[in-house]
Amino acid sequence: MAQRSSRVSASSENLAALFDPKSIAVVGASDDVAKFGARPIHFMLQGGYQGPIYPINPKGGTIQGLNAYRDIRELPEPVDMVVISVPAKHVVEAATACAEAKAKSAVIFSSGFAEVGDQGTLWQDQLRGIALDSGMRIVGPNCMGMTNSASRAVGTFSSVFAQAWPEVGGISVISQSGAVGAYMLVMGMERGLGLRTWITTGNEVDVDVSDCVAQCAEDPGTDVIVAYIEGAKKPDQMRRAFETARLSRKPVIVMKVGASDVGAEAANTHTASLAGADAIYDAVFRQYGVYRATSLENMLDVAQACATKQFPQTRKLGIVTVSGGAGVIASDAAEDHNLDLPPLPASAQKELKDLMPFAAVRNPVDTTAQMANDPQLFRRNLEVMLEVGGYDSVLTFLATIGLSATHILGDIIGILRDIAKTKPKALMVLSMLCRPDTKRELEALGYLVYEDPNRAIGVIGAMNYFSDEFRRPPEGTPPALAATARAVPSQPLTEHEAADLLRDAGISMVPGKVATNAEDAAQAAEAIGFPVVLKIVSAEIQHKSDIGGVKLNLADAAAVRGAFDDIMTAARAAQPEAQLDGCLVAPMISGGVETILGVNRDPLFGPVVLFGLGGVFVEVLKDVTFRAAPFDVAEAHRMIREVKGYGMLEGVRGSKPADVDALAHTLSQLSVFAAANTDTLEGIDLNPLLVLDEGQGVVGVDAVVIPRGSEG
Amino acid sequence: MAQRSSRVSASSENLAALFDPKSIAVVGASDDVAKFGARPIHFMLQGGYQGPIYPINPKGGTIQGLNAYRDIRELPEPVDMVVISVPAKHVVEAATACAEAKAKSAVIFSSGFAEVGDQGTLWQDQLRGIALDSGMRIVGPNCMGMTNSASRAVGTFSSVFAQAWPEVGGISVISQSGAVGAYMLVMGMERGLGLRTWITTGNEVDVDVSDCVAQCAEDPGTDVIVAYIEGAKKPDQMRRAFETARLSRKPVIVMKVGASDVGAEAANTHTASLAGADAIYDAVFRQYGVYRATSLENMLDVAQACATKQFPQTRKLGIVTVSGGAGVIASDAAEDHNLDLPPLPASAQKELKDLMPFAAVRNPVDTTAQMANDPQLFRRNLEVMLEVGGYDSVLTFLATIGLSATHILGDIIGILRDIAKTKPKALMVLSMLCRPDTKRELEALGYLVYEDPNRAIGVIGAMNYFSDEFRRPPEGTPPALAATARAVPSQPLTEHEAADLLRDAGISMVPGKVATNAEDAAQAAEAIGFPVVLKIVSAEIQHKSDIGGVKLNLADAAAVRGAFDDIMTAARAAQPEAQLDGCLVAPMISGGVETILGVNRDPLFGPVVLFGLGGVFVEVLKDVTFRAAPFDVAEAHRMIREVKGYGMLEGVRGSKPADVDALAHTLSQLSVFAAANTDTLEGIDLNPLLVLDEGQGVVGVDAVVIPRGSEG
Repeated sequence: MAQRSSRVSASSENLAALFDPKSIAVVGASDDVAKFGARPIHFMLQGGYQGPIYPINPKGGTIQGLNAYRDIRELPEPVDMVVISVPAKHVVEAATACAEAKAKSAVIFSSGFAEVGDQGTLWQDQLRGIALDSGMRIVGPNCMGMTNSASRAVGTFSSVFAQAWPEVGGISVISQSGAVGAYMLVMGMERGLGLRTWITTGNEVDVDVSDCVAQCAEDPGTDVIVAYIEGAKKPDQMRRAFETARLSRKPVIVMKVGASDVGAEAANTHTASLAGADAIYDAVFRQYGVYRATSLENMLDVAQACATKQFPQTRKLGIVTVSGGAGVIASDAAEDHNLDLPPLPASAQKELKDLMPFAAVRNPVDTTAQMANDPQLFRRNLEVMLEVGGYDSVLTFLATIGLSATHILGDIIGILRDIAKTKPKALMVLSMLCRPDTKRELEALGYLVYEDPNRAIGVIGAMNYFSDEFRRPPEGTPPALAATARAVPSQPLTEHEAADLLRDAGISMVPGKVATNAEDAAQAAEAIGFPVVLKIVSAEIQHKSDIGGVKLNLADAAAVRGAFDDIMTAARAAQPEAQLDGCLVAPMISGGVETILGVNRDPLFGPVVLFGLGGVFVEVLKDVTFRAAPFDVAEAHRMIREVKGYGMLEGVRGSKPADVDALAHTLSQLSVFAAANTDTLEGIDLNPLLVLDEGQGVVGVDAVVIPRGSEG
Repeated sequence: MAQRSSRVSASSENLAALFDPKSIAVVGASDDVAKFGARPIHFMLQGGYQGPIYPINPKGGTIQGLNAYRDIRELPEPVDMVVISVPAKHVVEAATACAEAKAKSAVIFSSGFAEVGDQGTLWQDQLRGIALDSGMRIVGPNCMGMTNSASRAVGTFSSVFAQAWPEVGGISVISQSGAVGAYMLVMGMERGLGLRTWITTGNEVDVDVSDCVAQCAEDPGTDVIVAYIEGAKKPDQMRRAFETARLSRKPVIVMKVGASDVGAEAANTHTASLAGADAIYDAVFRQYGVYRATSLENMLDVAQACATKQFPQTRKLGIVTVSGGAGVIASDAAEDHNLDLPPLPASAQKELKDLMPFAAVRNPVDTTAQMANDPQLFRRNLEVMLEVGGYDSVLTFLATIGLSATHILGDIIGILRDIAKTKPKALMVLSMLCRPDTKRELEALGYLVYEDPNRAIGVIGAMNYFSDEFRRPPEGTPPALAATARAVPSQPLTEHEAADLLRDAGISMVPGKVATNAEDAAQAAEAIGFPVVLKIVSAEIQHKSDIGGVKLNLADAAAVRGAFDDIMTAARAAQPEAQLDGCLVAPMISGGVETILGVNRDPLFGPVVLFGLGGVFVEVLKDVTFRAAPFDVAEAHRMIREVKGYGMLEGVRGSKPADVDALAHTLSQLSVFAAANTDTLEGIDLNPLLVLDEGQGVVGVDAVVIPRGSEG
């Protein structure tokens, strides 16, 4: 055990070395920069990497002016990272040598592995073994590798670095696709984004996207994490990594693809990675405050904004505009993003109105074109927004002033420089047309600049999302498994047995008694109290109502006796072979809001809990939401509020609010039960679970529990 | 009548003159280009406008080298357009002179009208009178005016034209905001868009946004119409203009703002225009195939694409990519936009696989990085997509090749040029990073180029939207008003009277008979057939159920008699002052899908018809849709399919499909009745209207009709 934990810590230390390597060897090094193996050395020499670079080549001699070693085991020191760029058939041998040389990590460019066929899969298994045995972390194979902008460490062959280097900053970029990773990198460079580590993970024999997020969450140099994900392999670690990032106030911006059937198919042929259902990913992102980008452009917009670290304290947005129309556009967009536009205090409105008689001064403040003739008006407007208005975000629309050939542009930039010097606590966003150099100048002052006002507001919305998510307390501990909980058996369960199992797991279920003859049924009904329901009990009958196996609203003993006989007759007629265990007698419950709780075994995330409202909400609108189990009561509350029909639980047309607290406890309890039975549980349908009036709790009416392996 | 129709045709001819003026006068002309009145002349002289330009200035002499006239009435000819740039108090006088000089149109820059106060409103009324009396079309006041890129006619003071001229093309831009109009113009110029007429409408005393859309729809030089709208004033004309554009296959791309409360407020202070409810606008846009842009950026993206006129015949999209990841991104986006990704024929797949053993060749075709080393592979791929695949849109992802410093970029451009020469019938879209000059070069060849793959797919989706909308037949004639239809009376109606009124208007309603005593009620029930429903009849009792005024499911005569007495007693107890007219006896209807039909008087669009599914769909989910009345049955069908709960009508859980045809007929008939009673009808609630099984029709159960003026 001690050995294992020291291996885990070594593994984590080695991962850190991979992200910021202080010494680098290249297996397959060459003088010919057209070759992949030559490029890392070439780029590092160009870029000014300060650590030792060790070319490895069986011929020895010098490579690109550096002393080359014939074998990695001859190096004077164990290196932080080795780049391996040799044909697939030599990779296992090379990786073995690296592990023997105690290299902390290896980046394998070579393709020809699982993406090609069986021999490649075998080699990948061997590589995985080497990583596990030695603790050396392996990236790839079939990947584009990594760089660290700060140190200019290069473990990639991407020709991007032949032309320019990204600015140094706190944004780390992780990609499961090399080409998309390179594309994002260049998009970021074109925008002047400050980058930290860039890494692409290829076939993920060892280091996967979750490891990378986890490492970035720990890395003091990383402020913002950007990840392109096709499919995760270590869901638990991914969730932990997301939570670590959130608690460190590091925004995680994810582009998750493969939602479409066609997309998912392409993802499979592309990385052979297993894509979980998109709805589950979406739920996990919401659960951990991850921002799901809608496009690469959106991803970089939000990353750039996050790099300012100006997460607004509140949703109060102030708008200053030289055009009323642009103010309307921005106001509409603000509403879409749940931003508030409180008016300026009356005294401030009066001051501005005195300065600009034709202006609108509430919020948006529309200075009209007057401002273009008197930049000091602009200064005063911004001062008022920041000092008196107390807005946490300020959007300023400057139209085409940025393209002006007159002195006005210089005046405006001067004022923006002065304002920036006061270190305003607000997120400062400009929407304007301007030349690229003006944009860079303003960005360097801490402003975000977008041509399109909707895009500007979208980014402010994203910043507020993170603000809210960072404020949320750490993920709580789920409740303990009920003391009376039993394990899910391996045999099929009748409805009655399923209900008992869930009741013992702490879920409130309608009480009931199985009666084997009409007289027993009548007696049970007397004990329970009328009206009652009778249902056939048989593990072999699935659709009880369809065969006449259910009778509702039985008001007296005579009705119960008659119903018992009718049900048994109908069941015998419908399924003569089925074993009939009698009828379940249960109270007739009326009222309450119908909900559906479920558990499903996701191939990636394991047990996943579903919640939805009953009836048309599920059947027509598919209005459901998910969470990976287990989760705490607070998360259950968030989950409940995600469905569109949530209003049903708040009370419709004068009906009382439902007992949402009890529902949340039940959801959380169900998730704990599901997690405790990961290996034996295929699925649960608790449908309906009635949510009674506030304070009255919930009660499950029907339950199906399917043990794993019994599902047919 | 002849006089009126000749005035209408003169008015329409004068509008055409405004959009493409062959002679221009400027009232308030000056030598000082800092002044608004000097700028149109200055810009036209710079731009090379070929028609006569007449400066008007009481001092006479020459202005900017042109002979100046002291009075517009001294001009040698009536001009197509006069620009008026004088202080507000002189504008009415100037406009009067222009009308006397038989100017066809006038553009009034001057501010200080309705946006300022009562005197300004009075002046506006006078200007409206001048326009009506003379037929001279007036743009503004308080507007930024217009330009025509082709002729370089200028009726604007916008400094945009001091720096550059837009490219000449077929995109006309209309804006209710001068500043937003100018911003859109510059955004378009930065993208190299080919523009036709650009016009901003200001206070819209005469020419409004609907006139402008209508004129562009008729203008042979306009291919694409882009409009920024805060609020329309002539809804019927707007609808006709949209339909004219659609039938001429001219895409209309609208950014409609003022949806937010705050936004609507700002719109009011800005242009004093009346904004209708956003949901109604949205419905009108859908009804006439208008594309509602989500941002200015999106608006210009779509306009640029439309200018290619390559509207795809089908939704079949082919994707060629050098990166599997980008293929997944594009596939996901394609699904979001309802685009199809049919696989290549097997033979084509085989051919490509032979060429590129490591490629995915289905669709998306992922050529892998191999293509970057062999551009002829790229050529063959595109050829196969176009010739064999038969895709109507082809997206090609080229990563960062556009930034490549090597020969590869030239090779690729050469191939794209060759392909363009074959005049492919497909919409050709590229997603890549490239320098601005490369982008322009490719755009000139007919390719659309977007950095972001999601944005590229979004544009393909928009092009398919237009394709579908252009294919739709012309708006049909609504059915005739039922021969038995009566006018809505001015007095409040009981439920029974409302039902009779609707029945006579051709709406199927539950039959019923009013009984004034228990015995009559029982006899009526016998005649109708059991079970029946009894409801109190009183114009003064609104919530019948709440006071015990409704009894359901009465199975025999005795039950009916008892219920009659109970209802009358309860009603007397609850509202002793109310006049009770007896009880309505109606059949108890069961089954059918509950829907809600309604009519509401919109301050802008007049009678508007609502459709929704009953119960939670309306009450919790607000799942309703609208149409301006009247509309034909085909439009009603489209309306029905817009609600999220439409699946309810298709049959849920084995229930039969509902009679959607009958529902559509009823909606259309209701819209005709509403339109025929525009002046007298405040609203209708037909709730529920039950839609029975296919072939069984519909039946309205409860109806409320509120005559206008009787609602308070």
